[in-house]
Amino acid sequence: MLLRSLATVTAQKPYFLDEPVKPMMQTAVPGPASKSVLERLDKYQDTRTAFFVADFEKSKGNYIVDVDGNTMLDVFAQIASIPIGYNNPAFLELATKPAFQTALANRAALGVNPTKDWVDSVEDAFMRVAPKGMANVFTVMCGSCANENAFKTAFMYQAAKRRGQNDFTPEELNSCMKNQAPGSPDMSILSFSQAFHGRLFGSLTATASKAIHKVDIPAFDWPKAPFPALKYPLEDHVEHNKKAEAASLEQVEHIIKTNQKPVAAVVVEPIQSEGGDNHASFDYFRKLQAICQKHDVLFIVDEVQTGVGATGTFWAHEAWNLPSPPDIVTFSKKFQAAGFYLNPQLRPKHTYRLYNTWMGDPVRAMQAAAIVNEIESKDLLSNVKQVGGYLQRGLKELASKGSLANVRGQGTFIAFDMHTPTERDNFLLAMRQKGVNIGGCGERSVRLRPMLVFQQNHADILLNTMESVLYK
Amino acid sequence: MLLRSLATVTAQKPYFLDEPVKPMMQTAVPGPASKSVLERLDKYQDTRTAFFVADFEKSKGNYIVDVDGNTMLDVFAQIASIPIGYNNPAFLELATKPAFQTALANRAALGVNPTKDWVDSVEDAFMRVAPKGMANVFTVMCGSCANENAFKTAFMYQAAKRRGQNDFTPEELNSCMKNQAPGSPDMSILSFSQAFHGRLFGSLTATASKAIHKVDIPAFDWPKAPFPALKYPLEDHVEHNKKAEAASLEQVEHIIKTNQKPVAAVVVEPIQSEGGDNHASFDYFRKLQAICQKHDVLFIVDEVQTGVGATGTFWAHEAWNLPSPPDIVTFSKKFQAAGFYLNPQLRPKHTYRLYNTWMGDPVRAMQAAAIVNEIESKDLLSNVKQVGGYLQRGLKELASKGSLANVRGQGTFIAFDMHTPTERDNFLLAMRQKGVNIGGCGERSVRLRPMLVFQQNHADILLNTMESVLYK
Repeated sequence: MLLRSLATVTAQKPYFLDEPVKPMMQTAVPGPASKSVLERLDKYQDTRTAFFVADFEKSKGNYIVDVDGNTMLDVFAQIASIPIGYNNPAFLELATKPAFQTALANRAALGVNPTKDWVDSVEDAFMRVAPKGMANVFTVMCGSCANENAFKTAFMYQAAKRRGQNDFTPEELNSCMKNQAPGSPDMSILSFSQAFHGRLFGSLTATASKAIHKVDIPAFDWPKAPFPALKYPLEDHVEHNKKAEAASLEQVEHIIKTNQKPVAAVVVEPIQSEGGDNHASFDYFRKLQAICQKHDVLFIVDEVQTGVGATGTFWAHEAWNLPSPPDIVTFSKKFQAAGFYLNPQLRPKHTYRLYNTWMGDPVRAMQAAAIVNEIESKDLLSNVKQVGGYLQRGLKELASKGSLANVRGQGTFIAFDMHTPTERDNFLLAMRQKGVNIGGCGERSVRLRPMLVFQQNHADILLNTMESVLYK
Repeated sequence: MLLRSLATVTAQKPYFLDEPVKPMMQTAVPGPASKSVLERLDKYQDTRTAFFVADFEKSKGNYIVDVDGNTMLDVFAQIASIPIGYNNPAFLELATKPAFQTALANRAALGVNPTKDWVDSVEDAFMRVAPKGMANVFTVMCGSCANENAFKTAFMYQAAKRRGQNDFTPEELNSCMKNQAPGSPDMSILSFSQAFHGRLFGSLTATASKAIHKVDIPAFDWPKAPFPALKYPLEDHVEHNKKAEAASLEQVEHIIKTNQKPVAAVVVEPIQSEGGDNHASFDYFRKLQAICQKHDVLFIVDEVQTGVGATGTFWAHEAWNLPSPPDIVTFSKKFQAAGFYLNPQLRPKHTYRLYNTWMGDPVRAMQAAAIVNEIESKDLLSNVKQVGGYLQRGLKELASKGSLANVRGQGTFIAFDMHTPTERDNFLLAMRQKGVNIGGCGERSVRLRPMLVFQQNHADILLNTMESVLYK
């Protein structure tokens, strides 16, 4: 018996009038056409991680279509990076505009030659939704690069503070060319157990989600604090969770005070995503910031996965009600453009220290502006809050029957656990065969990362499909 | 008296019929309109490195137009990253194609959902010009990321070799989560003095072009070998240069044999670019590869700046006539798409180790295919060789009069030195005021990075303007 049906829910005006009404499966996934393309591609690239081959021309809104003609409800959304639905008319229209085509045909080195409309994009995309009190933005090409440049900014800030009014010493300038102290200083970034901040050498050092990402790659000797291991539902475990958070904060402060390599910054995700969708209370983050401020350690919030609306606020950290802004907030994925917000006093005194060839991409910034427009004009944050609540209630109903546990979320940024990694993997495969594309995270968690245009009818399909897979 | 004029050179059919015929200056650079935009932008971003604000809509072929209406011959080309001229019709036409617009509106996570035409792009762009014998390609978003992932590949290869048929030990998997050995191994990448490989933590460690890029940023304790300091013109200093190269190679082998942190790979630029356009002989690179092979150290060629035709071959290292391919070749900039070629045996055995969200950009890959088409159909490599020879001869004539020295180059990838850094900086500024946009490199070098559509008439304008600036 199905828990819910389209007829019983409040009718919502659909964002996509021409979207499929439900999944339609023609073959197993991956089907023969996907397999054939993957076999051809595998000569050149490792395709073992591919779920199927996408036909984006035919995909629409919340539905992804593959080359076998399978139409799937997509709550993985290119690893949480599609914001406003496949083939959103706002994006398609943008692609026909001369300014957009000019930006595409002439890729700027923005540090040398900002384009005439770059400042408009900066205002219309990044500054329009800047976290309160954050006045500057530095743009790059991907989330890992955003975090690495944020770390560089923190190191330069701390070194400048230590140096005071003095300029670099000849010893610093000479030793850094040999990768040695004092020019290459023994400072560190403090991150958390289960954190994911990227896969390049600095960001991978700060990452601790899975050993397979890190093994065999040299890393800096940077410290990790335990992220609080909360029990869910949060409201039933208040005392335990308070203790776990206090213990984590105590470790953070202990490491800041005693670590041999001085801590330049603390970096934290509002919800640890790749590491298993681990939450902490808003109070925890306020206290974390206070500890950072007390010791003049920068407070970096990594919103690469949580940013751009899915938690119900544009930035997840907005919900914390911090007394003052973070020092740095990084972004990528659903914003299409990558980079970080920073306070202007973090600009290095010398030029060419935060710099690279492209310094971001005007094309992706124009898309980011279109995303902001769409979120505002369609009030997608309200949609996320409403449908997120609805979906969480539905999942808790399903959880009460035993196959899943620890339903947790903010907005539609929701996860739950299965009993074992194998059960989780089998569940994801079974759901895909029934036309719902989902991803995992952590050891045995399932993460839902629907787009901001995910509505109640989509939630119903997701819940009904889960019910049929889990409880036959 | 001008050395040359349009009338005296062989008439070439112009690639751009509607290109300006010469620079046309309306104001000083940056002019009032540029300054006004930069002032507005500076509220959000550091604009001190900006030369002027570009109006790409009005730019064409080899000419960049700024917002003050100044039309400049551009031989800096967005830090060597514009391949086939501003507003090339091939790029503009591509932007109108449905497949391109679909790729733009639906950004793929290629590791999860390769798109149906991705394999075509891989073949039409990357594999069509793959260095001989290199059968695989891994795509990312920028040059620094290309190098960092190449380094990761090298570390995984060396660790797997050491491990043999065994799987990871529990100790390795546990220790890497703490950023400690043996899981986070003490291996290294060997690079060269004056090298530039990027600005992220691994790539910046391998970089040694300028202290200001490195100071205050933690680095790995990775070694540097001296890059041979050749004297120019090469043909007049054969003995000295041979000795310098032999000494460099001796150091390379010494470091590989004795470095405390085992060397996983050697990374080298075919022409050190940011570091001052430093050349070495083809024989040097052949011997360098041989040393790497002797010690089973991977040989990584960083073609981020030299790749895609400017040296007269598609890849600069093709000119070396290596007996077997390099292990890895990295690219970005003029290819618009970034990544690296690798031999299939370097694919990690386990999945998700070379991986990230986007794994490159199908839009930029389609542009890369258009670039390859344009280079082949217009025979741009022949053009580069011909006009490069012409330009080098002209520069040597100018050098004979005393203001510049050490003219060196392959194709149009040409540089020369001024007497002092100040003279160089003043020269660049003066040239810009006269309508030629050029960049510097190293301490006192000028680097010419014209596009592949740079022809003799453009070379004449460059040379005549230089003559008027240097010799009044």
